[in-house]
Amino acid sequence: MARAAVVGAGMTTFGVHDTPLQELFAAAALEALDDAGVETTDVEALYFGNAMGGQAENDTHLGPTAASHVGLAGIPVQRYEDACATSANAFKNAVQAVDAGIHDVVLVGGVERCTPETGKDTAAMTRIFASAAHRQYEQPAGLTFPGVFALLTKRHMHEYGTTEEQLAHVAVKNHGNGALNPRAHFGRETSVEAVLDGPVVADPFRLMDCCPFSDGASAVVVVADDLADSHDAPVDVAGVGHATGVVPIADKATPHVTKPARDAAAAAYEQAGAGADAMDFAEVHDCFTGAEVLASEALGLVEDGQGGVAAADGRTARDGDVPINPSGGLKAKGHPIGATGTAQIVELAEHLRGEAGERQIADAERAVAHNLGGDAATTVVSVMEARP
Amino acid sequence: MARAAVVGAGMTTFGVHDTPLQELFAAAALEALDDAGVETTDVEALYFGNAMGGQAENDTHLGPTAASHVGLAGIPVQRYEDACATSANAFKNAVQAVDAGIHDVVLVGGVERCTPETGKDTAAMTRIFASAAHRQYEQPAGLTFPGVFALLTKRHMHEYGTTEEQLAHVAVKNHGNGALNPRAHFGRETSVEAVLDGPVVADPFRLMDCCPFSDGASAVVVVADDLADSHDAPVDVAGVGHATGVVPIADKATPHVTKPARDAAAAAYEQAGAGADAMDFAEVHDCFTGAEVLASEALGLVEDGQGGVAAADGRTARDGDVPINPSGGLKAKGHPIGATGTAQIVELAEHLRGEAGERQIADAERAVAHNLGGDAATTVVSVMEARP
Repeated sequence: MARAAVVGAGMTTFGVHDTPLQELFAAAALEALDDAGVETTDVEALYFGNAMGGQAENDTHLGPTAASHVGLAGIPVQRYEDACATSANAFKNAVQAVDAGIHDVVLVGGVERCTPETGKDTAAMTRIFASAAHRQYEQPAGLTFPGVFALLTKRHMHEYGTTEEQLAHVAVKNHGNGALNPRAHFGRETSVEAVLDGPVVADPFRLMDCCPFSDGASAVVVVADDLADSHDAPVDVAGVGHATGVVPIADKATPHVTKPARDAAAAAYEQAGAGADAMDFAEVHDCFTGAEVLASEALGLVEDGQGGVAAADGRTARDGDVPINPSGGLKAKGHPIGATGTAQIVELAEHLRGEAGERQIADAERAVAHNLGGDAATTVVSVMEARP
Repeated sequence: MARAAVVGAGMTTFGVHDTPLQELFAAAALEALDDAGVETTDVEALYFGNAMGGQAENDTHLGPTAASHVGLAGIPVQRYEDACATSANAFKNAVQAVDAGIHDVVLVGGVERCTPETGKDTAAMTRIFASAAHRQYEQPAGLTFPGVFALLTKRHMHEYGTTEEQLAHVAVKNHGNGALNPRAHFGRETSVEAVLDGPVVADPFRLMDCCPFSDGASAVVVVADDLADSHDAPVDVAGVGHATGVVPIADKATPHVTKPARDAAAAAYEQAGAGADAMDFAEVHDCFTGAEVLASEALGLVEDGQGGVAAADGRTARDGDVPINPSGGLKAKGHPIGATGTAQIVELAEHLRGEAGERQIADAERAVAHNLGGDAATTVVSVMEARP
């Protein structure tokens, strides 16, 4: 028996959207409800994610606004904010609620607007987003998130000899996948040479090692296992693990190990009764190329130290033995912060339904999503399966 | 059988605190853990509330920071933001999780810093807090929260003839109660004449009709019903209801009725198997005196239209037939936004244990808490009982 099932999925294109947050969310939410064949009167609760609406556009308490805008006023709504893991955390809580019988049908999703076109220049948005770093110990040092992941990746390079060229292969792969994804922010390919020619953002990351800030929204309808078969093309949620890590980074014993990802993955795999070997592909949180390397190891998809090598060898390509980020990942698909977690769930659902078009992972039956927030602090790992 | 039990409660004084958010939260959290006799290794999850840390001090993703600071790094943590109902929503989700067997022992709480002494002048904080009003339809009109509740209250005055003098009686009562509460922001009495002599903030509210912004934190330990008796002085959580209302205000059919409060109360009473008549006292969300009038009616504690009359007649005093806000309420105890919801739970627990000192409601066996967020949008109502 699955913990729950995803019976509807929707998302906007990731990129630039000149519409208010609640309208952007509604576009994804209504698509998910329509896909599920669920009426608004059937939805019992909304688990809503938005990370930076307060700072970026003085917009908080968005839960009831989002619910009102899609015709769901009245039901219980809760807003989650856990940095980049915002909507994965909403998803976890929704799955728990459905699994426990608290609700039978819920809507989960997230939304964010981060692009200069919506009034936030990249420097300001970087400063705003640095609010997810430690206020006393990290922010005063000027640590922003390229620096956070540069620190973790540098340690990995020191431990294992991972190279900048290997990191570039992650970017090249994800851009290649993104070129096949009609909803990707960056729909074009790149090359190792082009990545290595880019300006340094935070050593070892160059411009093309970094994901963009995007505007976008994503949503899924989650229902109880015993209701799933009354919908078209349900996808099972087999396991969801969630762990946090100590902050600030200086207190982490082994920063490049990303312990919360390992703890969350272990929990998700145990619930699913299936380990890393049984995953046909993965969507992981590649906010920077180095983050994908760390995640691929933390999830057990490759051996420790082999994350960079695997990318360079093509093992993580769509036709490799451990395909990672067929969507293009945050790197190419884009990263509307609070929408990223449930967008990974949307991607898993499409492949497991066999509806991912040109980027479809052949015969995909089981996959894992990894969404990370802050300085490797909040991590949610979800395992999904095609329904037998 | 109760849905869950509160076995530990802690809170800081509400007022001015010159300590970072995570230290302020830790003070309440460690007091709650100590009160419960629970070790940090026993806590399975943290349900954390903070409303405005992003805008007020560029501090987000506070869940892992708060957990790390009290020795809970590693466990699942989720941050809730639902305006003034932030930590009541965290409490609801925690109770659901414990009731459903997802966790056995969890920590729930909230924290906020809002005072000029921590760097936010009142005008700036009012503007920040207005982010919880509708971004497209209310903020551009200059609507801040004194105005929101003035609109609701004016309608109540129009419908029922409620007077400014009756509203003043709410302030006088709550200041009288706050004077007996060693943790209250305003520990002094006032008079109807003094309230009516104050400057108008938003007609019909004068200065003393309005609660302050405060700094503070609160936390409770929630455990499964079958574990409660292994702790000293458990207090049962009999019911928790949660509903939202349509936004913006212009879309509400009858604004002064506060429908979400009625829906949430109906759910909480049904779960508890006890109605308004069975409540020995109530803590309600009196961000403004008029809000207490509306809440007292929505919870069924007095008849519709009688909220102002009941206050003026002394019925809602500590020795009245429907005591409301023995803590002093938001009005006198103070209002550190994200900490207010669980602070109400702390107050209920203290009375139901018979440990509320000078402000103790005699023989209190059952009580209700009402926490409201935004423009009467998110409302959580909780019923608690002394354990038989």
